[in-house]
Amino acid sequence: MLERNVIQGRGFSNVVEGGQVTGFQFDLRNPNYRGGWASLVDGVEVIVDGEKIESHVPLWTLQGRTFTRDELRASDVRWSLDELARITVPKPGGLSTGVHRIEVTVFIRRSYFPPMIERSTFPAERQTVIVPPAPEGPLKWCVSTYSYAQDINTLMTLEDVLADVADLGATGIEILGEGNVPGYPAPDAAWIDHWHGLVQRFGLTPTNFGSWVDTTRWHDRALTAEEAAEQLQLDLRLAHQLGFTSVRPKFGVTSWQLDPHPVWRDAVLRSLDLAAELDVVICPEIHAPTPIKNPVTQGYIDLIEETGSEHFKLLIDTGIFQTAPVLENAEDIEVSDGGDIPEHLRPLNVPMEDLREVLPHVHFIQAKFFDIDDDLYDLHIPWEPILTTLREAGWSGWLSSEYEGVRDPYRGADQVRRQHALLRRVVGAATS
Amino acid sequence: MLERNVIQGRGFSNVVEGGQVTGFQFDLRNPNYRGGWASLVDGVEVIVDGEKIESHVPLWTLQGRTFTRDELRASDVRWSLDELARITVPKPGGLSTGVHRIEVTVFIRRSYFPPMIERSTFPAERQTVIVPPAPEGPLKWCVSTYSYAQDINTLMTLEDVLADVADLGATGIEILGEGNVPGYPAPDAAWIDHWHGLVQRFGLTPTNFGSWVDTTRWHDRALTAEEAAEQLQLDLRLAHQLGFTSVRPKFGVTSWQLDPHPVWRDAVLRSLDLAAELDVVICPEIHAPTPIKNPVTQGYIDLIEETGSEHFKLLIDTGIFQTAPVLENAEDIEVSDGGDIPEHLRPLNVPMEDLREVLPHVHFIQAKFFDIDDDLYDLHIPWEPILTTLREAGWSGWLSSEYEGVRDPYRGADQVRRQHALLRRVVGAATS
Repeated sequence: MLERNVIQGRGFSNVVEGGQVTGFQFDLRNPNYRGGWASLVDGVEVIVDGEKIESHVPLWTLQGRTFTRDELRASDVRWSLDELARITVPKPGGLSTGVHRIEVTVFIRRSYFPPMIERSTFPAERQTVIVPPAPEGPLKWCVSTYSYAQDINTLMTLEDVLADVADLGATGIEILGEGNVPGYPAPDAAWIDHWHGLVQRFGLTPTNFGSWVDTTRWHDRALTAEEAAEQLQLDLRLAHQLGFTSVRPKFGVTSWQLDPHPVWRDAVLRSLDLAAELDVVICPEIHAPTPIKNPVTQGYIDLIEETGSEHFKLLIDTGIFQTAPVLENAEDIEVSDGGDIPEHLRPLNVPMEDLREVLPHVHFIQAKFFDIDDDLYDLHIPWEPILTTLREAGWSGWLSSEYEGVRDPYRGADQVRRQHALLRRVVGAATS
Repeated sequence: MLERNVIQGRGFSNVVEGGQVTGFQFDLRNPNYRGGWASLVDGVEVIVDGEKIESHVPLWTLQGRTFTRDELRASDVRWSLDELARITVPKPGGLSTGVHRIEVTVFIRRSYFPPMIERSTFPAERQTVIVPPAPEGPLKWCVSTYSYAQDINTLMTLEDVLADVADLGATGIEILGEGNVPGYPAPDAAWIDHWHGLVQRFGLTPTNFGSWVDTTRWHDRALTAEEAAEQLQLDLRLAHQLGFTSVRPKFGVTSWQLDPHPVWRDAVLRSLDLAAELDVVICPEIHAPTPIKNPVTQGYIDLIEETGSEHFKLLIDTGIFQTAPVLENAEDIEVSDGGDIPEHLRPLNVPMEDLREVLPHVHFIQAKFFDIDDDLYDLHIPWEPILTTLREAGWSGWLSSEYEGVRDPYRGADQVRRQHALLRRVVGAATS
């Protein structure tokens, strides 16, 4: 699907020619209700951060051919409703990393309007994000489809999500098994081929596969260890078939402290041989309100140490490092100024020292976040200390964007671009 | 694609069993970020127009099987993110024709939440429309894809639009040639097959095909009569190939009075043999600000009478009957209370007598409209006199919904349902 805004978020980037940044570009969908001859398109005025570029200046790329406005007027190409036009704006040095305001006015002549008003204007505007290339180093850049929850199936197909992830320069893709796999737990062969085709086409590596062991599936009894192991093994096999190298099982819990249901240990132990055979790592998630120094996390570490397995490790969700409460998601809770923050919203603020200690056991990091503002400031997650800790420890692995803020349409896509811009700026500054 | 609102507009209807209306039904998309066992779904509370139905009462249909809430708890089906659950609510007599307010709270247990708060609530609400069956009679019920402009390609596929049209009980589909046909003017064979498959699957008859003869395509000269005829004939052939029985060419104009460019006559004359051969009627559009008593319309009637052709007739756009100005689309124009309405916004208010007079020449009616309120009152178009005139004249043919109001997401789909509810109520009342 195309993005609703005429100015698409995907595709916004600087243009590099011969090692020089010569301008920027973005994609436009046809703002009219019909397609038509591109000769009827009469240019596009662009205003970027208040700076105006006259309508005859930007270049148009349609069907792989690039035109000036005047060449377009004399061309025989069409601009259909389902095709994006790439607009290239000359600007030596291009645009800085981060959020920019783009306004456009597209001019299209309509033969069926009186001649004096034939040249119609189609205005649009948005904020959008320049993401710098991923820095070289031990960190690998990934995005979870969870970031696009509520938008997948309604505004975006899975293919659109993968296109977005590739466009921002990530190379890893994390998915939710029972969420993004049509026909789960037994997708048909055509879909499996489609999936492998998609990741190849977008140059993406499948990373982590989200799994749930729903211990309260039945009303009258808990899941048995055998049933729990069956679920985990089903997901290990499916993840492997789709090219994933780790599975995060989310076990049901039995307490306010999120103690996992006791079947977790048996289910994992029964599945370790299969995990080794498939070379897929089982990664339970350390997720707020469970900190690192805690019997739950310790239980996982104990199992790692007891078994010596290379196929059971930790997954860290960066929500545990939160320094400020997330209140925009909590519309049903009244938090008066200076009043008490409800317990489940209080930031855990796990110290970096605790992270450093467990890093040898950490296989995967979900870069959970909620809101990054127009200045690329994250209101809740302290990225500088987290990234410094990872760098100093020499940790290598996938850092996977997991947006969990307000689910307004397209907000996830925009916020993920902001997060990658922010994280790459921090990493780039530390290593340059 | 699924509609963004958890409560889908498509599918909202009364339930008829054994000739009795026993309740109503609607489709829900899974409100969670993951699919899961339907046994974890713990019912849905429904409030319709303020009347509450307890969460254990509605029936659930998943994968063609219907369950009570308690049966669902014990079932082994899943509810995936890309599958709609059909909710059936018992209510003898069902709901009245028109707009209703639906509120739901879906309950889903999450094993990974502490037991006391495991049962999560997912609220949603919307207004949606009960459309009565189409009355028997000479009027045939159609919808134009133009009603969904800006939503097609962004929120809805063409298939979604056809599903919507079929769901509201229309049997005709009108399209925009250069707009809805991928690869226009030469769609590939696979798409043509896809198109025929879609209309067959949804029980729809292709009716009118929108075409444009862009006389100002070139900057330095007008289109020649030969080029104009070539465009019209291309569209006649394509329309015929896709099963359409009329083509509306929109010719470029040369004046404030919308006089069509003089090539129109030659282009039509050169194409009449082809139109007859294909049995496709060429229908120029009588569209505001051109009334019926006008040299432009008279020029078309003269050609009909001169040629005696059965393949050149009129298309009436009901915007010419507008009785009140449409101001919500005119955000850039200030209209103070009591001030003058700008000329191009003044309603034409064409008298019914003029319609009656030309009806023998009218092949197709675009039921243009802008806004129908919650009481099914059209703020601009006088449907009762229009439908009375059609009935009294014994006119038969397609009445094709053409929504042209504010292009907010999904508004076209909702307004088309309102229009069919309104028109069918008027027609039904007159004939019963």
